[in-house]
Formats: sequence, structure tokens, C-alpha cells
Amino acid sequence: MTDIKLISEGLKNNNYRILARAISLVENEDEQADGLLNEVFRDTPPVYRLGVTGPPGAGKSTLLSRLVRLFREQQKKIGIIVVDPTSPFTGGAVLGDRIRMNELSSDPGIFIRSMATRGSLGGLSRTAQDVADLMAVAGMDLIVFETVGVGQGELDVARASDTTVVVLVPESGDSIQAMKAGLMEIADIFVINKSDRDGAEKMKIELEMMLQLRAGEDKWIPPIVKTIANNGDGINELFDTVQQHGKYIRNAGILKDKRSARMIEKIQALVSRDLLNQFWSPGRQELLKNKLEELLDRTLLPVNLIKDLKNLEK
Amino acid sequence: MTDIKLISEGLKNNNYRILARAISLVENEDEQADGLLNEVFRDTPPVYRLGVTGPPGAGKSTLLSRLVRLFREQQKKIGIIVVDPTSPFTGGAVLGDRIRMNELSSDPGIFIRSMATRGSLGGLSRTAQDVADLMAVAGMDLIVFETVGVGQGELDVARASDTTVVVLVPESGDSIQAMKAGLMEIADIFVINKSDRDGAEKMKIELEMMLQLRAGEDKWIPPIVKTIANNGDGINELFDTVQQHGKYIRNAGILKDKRSARMIEKIQALVSRDLLNQFWSPGRQELLKNKLEELLDRTLLPVNLIKDLKNLEK
Repeated sequence: MTDIKLISEGLKNNNYRILARAISLVENEDEQADGLLNEVFRDTPPVYRLGVTGPPGAGKSTLLSRLVRLFREQQKKIGIIVVDPTSPFTGGAVLGDRIRMNELSSDPGIFIRSMATRGSLGGLSRTAQDVADLMAVAGMDLIVFETVGVGQGELDVARASDTTVVVLVPESGDSIQAMKAGLMEIADIFVINKSDRDGAEKMKIELEMMLQLRAGEDKWIPPIVKTIANNGDGINELFDTVQQHGKYIRNAGILKDKRSARMIEKIQALVSRDLLNQFWSPGRQELLKNKLEELLDRTLLPVNLIKDLKNLEK
Repeated sequence: MTDIKLISEGLKNNNYRILARAISLVENEDEQADGLLNEVFRDTPPVYRLGVTGPPGAGKSTLLSRLVRLFREQQKKIGIIVVDPTSPFTGGAVLGDRIRMNELSSDPGIFIRSMATRGSLGGLSRTAQDVADLMAVAGMDLIVFETVGVGQGELDVARASDTTVVVLVPESGDSIQAMKAGLMEIADIFVINKSDRDGAEKMKIELEMMLQLRAGEDKWIPPIVKTIANNGDGINELFDTVQQHGKYIRNAGILKDKRSARMIEKIQALVSRDLLNQFWSPGRQELLKNKLEELLDRTLLPVNLIKDLKNLEK
């Protein structure tokens, strides 16, 4: 058997060591990655995807480790993908503070993987989704994405998830204020964590007011759940709410729409990579390099260079 | 004269009303946008680009309005591009809190434009850079990008800028802590704003320690400037430091490298758009739509669909 066949078999047998290796292939864009994803495509079940996002310090990891325990009581196997903001220089993950998640990793029903986002070309969601697929092949019944976000991160996680939980904390200052509007658009459920702090109720009322402005007749209005992850308060309610949202989107046909949109994005990304790889032959890269000086001097128009690039026989 | 000729003439005559219109064409991806950028390409001077980023609530706008006044004393005309985190649904900018910047906008030597980031395909840096080019054509001597970031935003701004200033505030909690490592990679200059608050000196020492770990012999070590933007403390020092960095990268050849990298990215983005527009003909979009069900059922492999898409005669 080829390597790919072996890895594929290992995944289907729920071998975690092989899962870890398969994920690395995908993360590193190894030349075997495509072949592997291809090999397991038919055996990839449509596993539910839960996204958890919010600002740094909101207590996402603690909350998640509590929530995951409730899913474990239902005997669900859970794959957790922690997506960290990236460094464009080292390519490495920059948040290392995953201590609280570690207690979960001794549970054989849980598989945790930390990933860095790379580059800006939607790299997060593409690779993270491929990793989620591998986890699904390897027997996970639920995939959880955890990511930090202001800006791009939380959009990617919302796109990749069936249910998106946005975790906030009652805090003064502009920080949360500034994020709220953006998060408003992507949240299916709001959590106000550390809700024993001052301002939790005020924040809830503010959120409710903002949500009412958007409420449509037959639309899901994001519930707001107050939690104290440190002692477990509100986690049961959050657990129930996540399941309610799951039922809602399944019945309303939204789950199917989300899966369709993600499949279309997948195909588009594959096509895009194919076309660009094919186009940027060594000869064309060379031509661009040779013409760079003229571009910077503004004596050569980009549109004319692009014509020349296209006309070049590879 | 065509519209494009008229707009191009207006830009070269430093007509702000026409600049605003030109920017809208580029922002809205109007069909005239490419023609316009093409028309003014030869007349686009290589204007210096300063990026200012940091978490929400760090006081970036106040700091920037102070800093910009010092550049104005040198009679420099300044284009400011405020990039706001996006909503994928409304496409609109979500931070509206630009009151402090407004006092600047009555100065005829300053042109401010607020932009939303769109989508995830590096949309920010591409469009923001085209907008910066238009501002340069219209006589601006310095372009300033201001953006909020944890995650993607600050990477884009660093890529688009010649000098990147990262603004932090002394604050307890994980928030800043979590961001620091990522920001470390992109900062040419650190600002600790609101430095009359507790913890400013401690933060400075921590940053210095992290920076020392990376220091190379002949490399620029990011200076740390303490400021209180509200009363102007430290702004002169920041102003000097920005100019020192500008001199450094000019002399070390780094400025040229940055401009080259940006030009290459520009050409790659144009090529990419071209190839994708050409590929995704109505017929191919139709084929993808028709095969979606089979993809979701996992009975059709993506790789096979892509073959069929390629073989389709448009």
C-alpha cells in the first residue's frame, strides 16, 4: 500500500497518531496532502461544526473545556481546532496559553490541535476546514473551532462553523464596544462570560437592544447566555442553546445552505490554486522579476506587463 | 474627454472632490476603476506610507491627530486611510467613532477616508493601496494607514506600510499580552500610549526584553516611545523616531525592497483576478451548481469536477 492508502486506513480506524500525521501533511501543504484529502473524500461524514470566538482574555478556553465535558457525557468524540493569530515571519502560532485546554487532552474522546493562520488568502478557513474533515474521517462527532478575533479571524470562523458562539466579558473601555458591531453580524449565540463582574447586566441589555434592531420575523435572534466559566455557572444553559441552534438551522434548511456555501468555496479555492500554479511558471516569474525596475519607475504599465505574461509560452 | 480623462486631470490638479469620487470608484470595484488606475499609473509618485495599528481603545486616533499636526508644520499634505474591520454581511465599516479625527478634516492639507475591509482575500491591502496611489496622484506627500488589529488587520497594514507604528496601552489582563508576540513581528516602532497609567514602565521593560531576544547585529531594533496622546506628551519623540526609521530603511535599501514586494503583490493580484474572472464563465458556474448535490453526497470527487470544469468550453 502507498503511504496515502496507509494513512487513509489509519484515519478510518480512528488512529490518533496517524490523524496527527495527516493533519501535519495538510498544514504543511505537503505534496501528499491533496492525494490524501482525495482518498478520504468519500468517507468524510458531515460532522457538525461549532465555532467559538471573542477577544483575547474573554475566557474562551475555560468556557470551552466546560462545554466540551457536557458533549462528552453524550459520548460524543470531539475534535478541537485552536486557531492562533499568525506571524507572517515565523509562520508560528503566537498564543501559547493553552494550559487550561491541556486537561482535556488526556481524554481519549478528545483530539486537540493548535494551528497558526498563515498568510491572508483565507488560509485559515481553508486549511482549518481540511483539518476538520480529517478529524471527521477519524471518528470525531463534533468539531470545535476556537479562535481569537478582531478583524478577520472571527469572520473565518463564522464561515467555517454551523453555530458560532461569541464570547464577551463585561469590561469598560472602548475595546468590547468597538468589537460588538462586527461580532453582532456573525454571532448565533452570545456569551457574557465572567458575568459576576460589574456591568454584565448592562452589557446584556445593550446587546439586546442592538439585536432587536436587526430582528426579523422568522429569523433566529441570537440568545445571550451569562456564564462564569470558572465555576461552571450557565454552562448547561449554553449547552442547551447550542443544541437548539443546531436544531433550528437543520429544520430551516440553513445547515444545508452553509454546507453548500463551504463546498463551493472549497472548489473555488482548489481552482484558484490550480490556475495560479499553472500560470506562474518559472519563465513568467522571471519576466516579472526582470520588469520590476520598469514598473517601479512607472515606465511600464501593469496592464502591458500582464499582456506580455499571458503571451509568454510558459 | 472621457470620464476617466477628466478624473485623471482632476487628480493631477489636486481636486479633492474628484479624489473622493475616484476613491469611490476603486472601493466599489467600478468597471472604470482599472482604467483610471491605469491612466494615472505613470503619474503616481512613490509617497511614503506610515501604518498605525494596535488594539481597540489604545488611543490611535488621538495619537495620530497629534502626530499629523507635526507633519503639517513641515507643509506636508497628508492622506489618511482609516481601515475598519468589516462586516461580511453589510459590507460596511463597523467602527464609527472617528470624532477626534474630524477636527483634522477641516485642514485643507489633510484628506481623510474611511474604508471597510472586504472579504478575506487580502482585500484590505489591495484596495487600500490603490486608494493610497490615488491620494499620491492628488498631491499627498505622506499616506497614513490606521487600522485596528488582532489577527489579520495589522499584518495587512504592515505589508502596506514603509514604517509601522504599533500602539499599546498599559493594561492588565491577557489582552495585550496575547497580542504582543504577533505585534512584535510587525512593529518598527512601539508606542505605549496613556503612559501615565500604572504599568507603563513595566510594559516597556517587558517589551524590551522580548525585543532583545530578536535583536540582530545590523538590524533596526524597534524603539519604544511612551506617549500621552491626550496632552501631547512624547509626540515630538515619536515624530523624530518615525523620521529616523524612514531614513534607516531608505539607506539600508529596505524601502526599495518593500516597494518591490508591493509591486509584485499588485501584479500577482491583478493576474489572479484576471485568471479567475476568465475561468468562472457562466457555463462553469452552472456546472458547479449542478454538481453541488453530488459533491455534498460525496459521490463526486472535487478533483474530477475540476477536470470537467477545465474541459468545459467556457
